[in-house]
Amino acid sequence: MQFHELLVGLIVVLLAAKLAGEAMERLGQTAVLGELLAGVVIGPGVLGLVREGDVLHALAELGVLILLFEVGLESDLAKLLSAGPQAILVAVAGVVVPFAAGYALMSWLGHPGLVAVFVGATLTATSVGITARVLTDLGRLHDPAATVVLGAAVVDDILGLLTLAVVTGVAATGAVSLGGIAFLGVKSVVFLIVAVVIALRRAPVLVGLIGRLQARGALLVSSLVFALAAAAAAEWIGLAAIIGAFAAGLILSRTEIRTQVEERLKPVADVMVPIFFVTVGMKVELSALNPFAPGAQLGVALALAVVAIASKLVAGLAVYHPGTRRWPVGVGMVPRGEVGLIFAGAGLAAAVVAHDLYSALVVVVMITTFVAPAWLRILYRPAVATAV
Amino acid sequence: MQFHELLVGLIVVLLAAKLAGEAMERLGQTAVLGELLAGVVIGPGVLGLVREGDVLHALAELGVLILLFEVGLESDLAKLLSAGPQAILVAVAGVVVPFAAGYALMSWLGHPGLVAVFVGATLTATSVGITARVLTDLGRLHDPAATVVLGAAVVDDILGLLTLAVVTGVAATGAVSLGGIAFLGVKSVVFLIVAVVIALRRAPVLVGLIGRLQARGALLVSSLVFALAAAAAAEWIGLAAIIGAFAAGLILSRTEIRTQVEERLKPVADVMVPIFFVTVGMKVELSALNPFAPGAQLGVALALAVVAIASKLVAGLAVYHPGTRRWPVGVGMVPRGEVGLIFAGAGLAAAVVAHDLYSALVVVVMITTFVAPAWLRILYRPAVATAV
Repeated sequence: MQFHELLVGLIVVLLAAKLAGEAMERLGQTAVLGELLAGVVIGPGVLGLVREGDVLHALAELGVLILLFEVGLESDLAKLLSAGPQAILVAVAGVVVPFAAGYALMSWLGHPGLVAVFVGATLTATSVGITARVLTDLGRLHDPAATVVLGAAVVDDILGLLTLAVVTGVAATGAVSLGGIAFLGVKSVVFLIVAVVIALRRAPVLVGLIGRLQARGALLVSSLVFALAAAAAAEWIGLAAIIGAFAAGLILSRTEIRTQVEERLKPVADVMVPIFFVTVGMKVELSALNPFAPGAQLGVALALAVVAIASKLVAGLAVYHPGTRRWPVGVGMVPRGEVGLIFAGAGLAAAVVAHDLYSALVVVVMITTFVAPAWLRILYRPAVATAV
Repeated sequence: MQFHELLVGLIVVLLAAKLAGEAMERLGQTAVLGELLAGVVIGPGVLGLVREGDVLHALAELGVLILLFEVGLESDLAKLLSAGPQAILVAVAGVVVPFAAGYALMSWLGHPGLVAVFVGATLTATSVGITARVLTDLGRLHDPAATVVLGAAVVDDILGLLTLAVVTGVAATGAVSLGGIAFLGVKSVVFLIVAVVIALRRAPVLVGLIGRLQARGALLVSSLVFALAAAAAAEWIGLAAIIGAFAAGLILSRTEIRTQVEERLKPVADVMVPIFFVTVGMKVELSALNPFAPGAQLGVALALAVVAIASKLVAGLAVYHPGTRRWPVGVGMVPRGEVGLIFAGAGLAAAVVAHDLYSALVVVVMITTFVAPAWLRILYRPAVATAV
């Protein structure tokens, strides 16, 4: 029976995600890394316990929409503005330098332009979620460097999603056309500007409508419908669905229902989001990392990981305020996390990034996600005892 | 694109569910009635906006599992025991009388024995959720009659789920075999006894294991995995998956994490459960209710509704304690709600109940669900002003 297979699949996916996530957290790492590893282990590459059928795939896609909606809700335009030009400078450097470095490395290795663009784009990502989580765990969320990193990560997220829209659009049209890029860029910017204008001007009207609902779960379900509708709209005009979900979160982040929506969305995200990360891990082809196999990509993965880390550390140098430490900012920008996986996954879905290169990119994401929390803990070590 | 179709389908289903649920609540009715009507309207019978594909079907099935898990969590063995023999007597009468009356009516109308058994079983249902919700809304949850109704509804739920297991098993084996019924009855009883024993003896061990997890969402996800595993186990030994989910809820209802699990499960249920009720409504064939059509079932539906209401009022007569009012108990047992739909749906899935009779049963469920809240409000009218 099909439903029985789904039940067993969900049990294995959720159980593996939580056990591996738990183990990683006890080792001082982030849960997302455990979820990725869990996917690698239960996936076809190792144990082959679970097959990604239509329903599991759909649940994973809904999971990543919910994640981006949550990230949008956590993003705060006001905080971003208060973090000032310093955060924006770090974010721009944190997009331009990794993109250029990734593009240059891949071109130098002889890959086609579009592949180099996708790899460069993947390296631009910064995971707001992981960075914020690590800083919270260290009790350093309100450190000057932490504020800059958070602000920069938010801007980086927006720039990254724009980049993703452009890159995905280019992959869909099949050619690097300047006119196409400009058109897609304009569409993306218009879409996000409309979202920001709605956020600033019309969000209270929307919230007023939602607030009038009294039935159980009305707030959460109507917010989720709003996010799904924005995702469908983004997809309909040719952008990625996650951009719509992010924009919906951004709109609601400016309203008084934000905290309530976040609070009620959290349990749903707790269940749905790991499904995404596990299925991402399930896509890793370990065989591609065998250094003795023909066409091995382990060297490429390690070279890309070095570039990925070094280029974000360079972004930290954009800090010019004397009271803000540069190292924590640079290291805080390093984890690519779910955003990097979304980029790599979009490249795979667009058939631009081959499976072996995709696996290499997942390894890069895993290395950056693994290194940053441990490194930040070392940087902040003297302060751990006084953490809130 | 398949995912785009799912997005649009989910938006329509959730939006229709919440708007219709909201409208019904404002009319003093229960949200579940609105969700059913919403399904009728957006389904193939009327507007044809949404098609129940594989993914939507799977989400609805997960929704009903989550609902039964929630009902199990709300069920309280201790409260049930304190409500005493009176509640058990009402519950037994509330199962035996409607079953006999429904079976007799259908047999008299010339239906085969198995069909009459399924209809009788459907009439035994009582919706703990709806009854508890209505009593809460009226501020009368701790009324003596309310305690008896709640206790009886819990026993009724267990008896009903046993009945469903027996009836589904009979449908699967294709014949009314006394040996088969006994075997299934024993399997059901053993399964629930094991669940109760675990609840009483081993639940703290389970909770100790869950409580040691620290990662975000660990409590909810591990509880949900437990419910899914119990559902898969129940299905594996030949019972309905919902019985497993209910048993899992019953086990966790005895532990100190119950409140936390309920609280975190609620937003997930808010999103998932309406999907089930809407897809149930989508299965209604309005044409079967046309009194002028050949093979019309409207007369059957109305006769069954009268039997359904009268037989539960008879159960109220089993109240013998002088301090407890009989009418609120009888009326409180009337709403069939989601449990009745599960029975009718199981009959449809087993190809025992035909589509036109299924539609008639859904109408019976809707009438009983519609009548009870209004009737209870009338019975409790003088006390509304002093409600907590």
